[in-house]
Amino acid sequence: MKISKKIEQAVKEDRVWWSFEYFPPRTAQGLQNLLDRIERMRALGPEFVDITWNAGGRTSDLTSELVRTCQKLIGVETCMHLTCTNMPAEKVDIALKEAKEHGCRNILALRGDPPMGKDEWEAVEGGYTHGIDLIRHITNNFGDYFDIAVAGFPQHQSLPPDELAQEVQWLKEKVDAGATFIFTQMFYDVDLFIAWVKTIRAAGITVPIVPGIAPIQTFNGFIKSTKLAQTTIPKALLDELEPYKNNDEKVREIGTKLVADMCRRILREDIGIRGLHFYTMNLEKGTRMLLEELNLVPRVEVIKPLPWRQSLTPNRRTETIRPIFWANRTKSYLSRTENWDEYPNGRFGDSRSPAYGELDGYGIWIKQTKEEAHQLWGYPTSLADLSALFSRFCLGQIPALPWSDTAPASETSVISNQLAKLNELGFLTINSQPAVDGCKSEDRVHGWGPAHGYVYQKAYLEFFVLPELLALLLPHVERDPNITYYVINKTGDLRTNTLSDGPNAVTWGVFPGKEIVQPTIVEAISFMAWKDEAYELGRQWGNLYDQDSPSRKFIHDLMEKSLLVNIVHNDHKQPNAIFEPFLKAGAEYQAQKALREQSAPVPNGSAH
Amino acid sequence: MKISKKIEQAVKEDRVWWSFEYFPPRTAQGLQNLLDRIERMRALGPEFVDITWNAGGRTSDLTSELVRTCQKLIGVETCMHLTCTNMPAEKVDIALKEAKEHGCRNILALRGDPPMGKDEWEAVEGGYTHGIDLIRHITNNFGDYFDIAVAGFPQHQSLPPDELAQEVQWLKEKVDAGATFIFTQMFYDVDLFIAWVKTIRAAGITVPIVPGIAPIQTFNGFIKSTKLAQTTIPKALLDELEPYKNNDEKVREIGTKLVADMCRRILREDIGIRGLHFYTMNLEKGTRMLLEELNLVPRVEVIKPLPWRQSLTPNRRTETIRPIFWANRTKSYLSRTENWDEYPNGRFGDSRSPAYGELDGYGIWIKQTKEEAHQLWGYPTSLADLSALFSRFCLGQIPALPWSDTAPASETSVISNQLAKLNELGFLTINSQPAVDGCKSEDRVHGWGPAHGYVYQKAYLEFFVLPELLALLLPHVERDPNITYYVINKTGDLRTNTLSDGPNAVTWGVFPGKEIVQPTIVEAISFMAWKDEAYELGRQWGNLYDQDSPSRKFIHDLMEKSLLVNIVHNDHKQPNAIFEPFLKAGAEYQAQKALREQSAPVPNGSAH
Repeated sequence: MKISKKIEQAVKEDRVWWSFEYFPPRTAQGLQNLLDRIERMRALGPEFVDITWNAGGRTSDLTSELVRTCQKLIGVETCMHLTCTNMPAEKVDIALKEAKEHGCRNILALRGDPPMGKDEWEAVEGGYTHGIDLIRHITNNFGDYFDIAVAGFPQHQSLPPDELAQEVQWLKEKVDAGATFIFTQMFYDVDLFIAWVKTIRAAGITVPIVPGIAPIQTFNGFIKSTKLAQTTIPKALLDELEPYKNNDEKVREIGTKLVADMCRRILREDIGIRGLHFYTMNLEKGTRMLLEELNLVPRVEVIKPLPWRQSLTPNRRTETIRPIFWANRTKSYLSRTENWDEYPNGRFGDSRSPAYGELDGYGIWIKQTKEEAHQLWGYPTSLADLSALFSRFCLGQIPALPWSDTAPASETSVISNQLAKLNELGFLTINSQPAVDGCKSEDRVHGWGPAHGYVYQKAYLEFFVLPELLALLLPHVERDPNITYYVINKTGDLRTNTLSDGPNAVTWGVFPGKEIVQPTIVEAISFMAWKDEAYELGRQWGNLYDQDSPSRKFIHDLMEKSLLVNIVHNDHKQPNAIFEPFLKAGAEYQAQKALREQSAPVPNGSAH
Repeated sequence: MKISKKIEQAVKEDRVWWSFEYFPPRTAQGLQNLLDRIERMRALGPEFVDITWNAGGRTSDLTSELVRTCQKLIGVETCMHLTCTNMPAEKVDIALKEAKEHGCRNILALRGDPPMGKDEWEAVEGGYTHGIDLIRHITNNFGDYFDIAVAGFPQHQSLPPDELAQEVQWLKEKVDAGATFIFTQMFYDVDLFIAWVKTIRAAGITVPIVPGIAPIQTFNGFIKSTKLAQTTIPKALLDELEPYKNNDEKVREIGTKLVADMCRRILREDIGIRGLHFYTMNLEKGTRMLLEELNLVPRVEVIKPLPWRQSLTPNRRTETIRPIFWANRTKSYLSRTENWDEYPNGRFGDSRSPAYGELDGYGIWIKQTKEEAHQLWGYPTSLADLSALFSRFCLGQIPALPWSDTAPASETSVISNQLAKLNELGFLTINSQPAVDGCKSEDRVHGWGPAHGYVYQKAYLEFFVLPELLALLLPHVERDPNITYYVINKTGDLRTNTLSDGPNAVTWGVFPGKEIVQPTIVEAISFMAWKDEAYELGRQWGNLYDQDSPSRKFIHDLMEKSLLVNIVHNDHKQPNAIFEPFLKAGAEYQAQKALREQSAPVPNGSAH
């Protein structure tokens, strides 16, 4: 989505918004850390993130890769920097084409710094010399597909009048050439900033201005970066920080207050600014503290437009429905459905029958290494071992299972005790959601979607179970007219009590002025496709133990014998009813077991 | 839908069902009465209705017309009789083709009675002699499109064995030729019926048997019809009725008990019968009493699969969404959308933008004659007159308004006082629905759809209002973030606070194993199409008064000046919140009026 649209909307709603800038790290581990951080910081509610372009072009592919991951997997809108440095026209076009493919619609067009090892800026053969050339190139080749941002320098306000006039003139030319908004360099002198805003407005530049805010993280970093950019530091600000220059903690604390004051003044001033662009320096704490100090709480609508993470690539943008089965394995779902011509929007399977990709590629692999697996899950050799393991996962005592890349969602905590109990009884749960009866969409746990709405869920459980225990369960399940279920075995024989092939919406939302949004469903064809993956994950888990080890044998045997079952309790007003059949069947199973043990010959005992 | 499917489903759910037979009346008035009766008796929950074919063929077009109205407007599945009497093959084909066009999938194939004025049956030139020829003709030309029923005669059980065997043989041949179930002639001797069932089962006839039940309405009618059909009457039955033969009331009372006993025995007997086919003789009372005596309560699912009456013609069968605007004018909606290639199913306007037909044909006319209109609505000449009139309509004291063919739906009775109040304040309401927060789908007032579900509604109001009152209302409306509205004037200028063009679902249902069903919506394009009709109805109402009469002038003036407004309160958990802005604006309006009156010169008073 174009940032100019977001700005427009925020202005209309008179609402403050914010965005984060990141730069591509230099190492693979750094990349993974950054992605985890962007993912975490998404919860702080940035309207978009901004990814810089490396001056030397060395990391340009990484920029594109970061944009892709943000759009596709993290589901956050991006702005991509693009510089003229070391960029022949064909490289610019590749970068733009890729950005377009990833669904990125915002480019910050820059001349860029001089290449590494050079003091003076110079154009490459077949490249551009000025930012404006890049802007013209983008609009000539991509029309208005991209929003084009340009950099603004509040510090210019301190230049002699004729130089300032020249800079403003150049900025105006860029806007006239097609730039749609301005990101400013960082600054700490609000008076200077306001004066500069008035200067460029007076020059007829009317596009939105987004001030760049750099949290103060350490004293040295602050001094170094302001010196490099020749940024004016108001004396009062420096005076407050200086006494604590060796105390990072204190600098961050005072710095946060000072920068927050700056932000408040900018927002208060009658210059039409509602957005703040944070230079995070790839760090989390400073930005987080600043937002807290400013009392800027993310809207659920921004961080969770749907209950699952929406992909923002062009072909998936309209996707509004997914089966529940991959809830804990998003990457796998994206990979297995990436060849779909159309993604479900409004109704699942309306225009096509889902054809899932084969089990290959990233999707099906267990994330953990052999060593990690052994450490996490030990060496189970009995159902009791597994029950204990799954149970501990449900209680949040283990961070992952082969079927869940991550710890249980916070929303399942309301049923974690019941889930633990079910696992103890021998129902090995691998997915679940609690019933929700019209919770406000703003709710921090269950909420999602636009404000002033209500969200609902039907209770859902998915689990592996041995046939003898399932035989005890099903009669209880079938006695409740509100329960629908699917049972499948490894070879794909399906049993169900549903009367139609159509999907069952298990999560839906009611919002002002909208159709009912129903983003999560249960249905047969997807379950059959998921089944292969669920059994395969079990097999792979087994393979993480040595060839003839008891753990491998046990896990593989269990996977062969177990059935995979999903159950929906269709009455969302009875949150606990889904557990009742399990408790009854579990009790019967225990009683039968006790009976068998009683009647079995007493080991080492005397005959009667 | 095929009756054999319905029977199958009912057997699966071990549920008793019933159906009604009607015959085409001889006069136009009779036809209207019968349609009204079929419409009313639909509430008794027949799985389908069965329309006879006139022996002489004289009323055959009427049969087709009745089938069409039942399928299209009343939304009840039909079975159409078809006889060989006076029917050359091409006439048979026309009848079948029409049935197919109307969405009827069930044909009762009969030889028929001799034509009027003849004692002996005879084939027409190019026609068929036996029922079986007709069956073969149907299956040859229509494959398995139609379910074909044949008549069974329990009375045959009383024939000499060889004659019985011959009859059973003929019946078997018809089934072998493609008949899928059997309707029996009426009978009163259950023993005879059971014996006959066993006889034909023994002969290898396995298709479902539906016993024909004739309620006893009057003694003479009972005797006459049984004599005509040579039906055995058990002595005990006759003995009970005879003493009261001149007391119709008493005969019906005793008859109901006796026939109910018959039905109970048939259903109890181990012969697999779960359905009863009632020969209504186009009468309501006898059938209704019998159903009550048998405690056969219709399922909401049967009488209200959706909140509005679904059309069962082939192209409209999948239609699951309609705009709320035509809620009180179904015929007009059907007529203005009959050229749509596709009807909304799941999402309104997903695959096409709605193109409504012009204002012509039946749709736009006021149903009432001039005389009826004057009697119903008097001669209004002021807003106060109209307020009083609309208010009385809301309170159920007037059966119709130009914008409503019928009295307010029973569900609106929960808000009738509030609606009356709004009208008194000058908001002339023409459509509304109360908020419903998860009422059981079985609920007799608000319920619809399959069992074990919940239904929901957002509060809705639509009204004409003068600009000065609207100006007071809108600020209050806009203060509530849960309200979305559309305001339009006669020339089509639209004002709204909705942010998207998409539809707003105002009625939806949550059912086991299903996507959320959202059958009623509010959206802009449909509202614009409805607007023309709403203003036109006002104009036509005015035209029912004489050219220069004050009523015509007043109504036409009002229609010129008024705005048409619809308002949705999007928080279904606050049922009364929709009324608040109206009460506030109304109070302000009254206060302003009082002020104006105070400051106006006192008539006939002395100057200060």
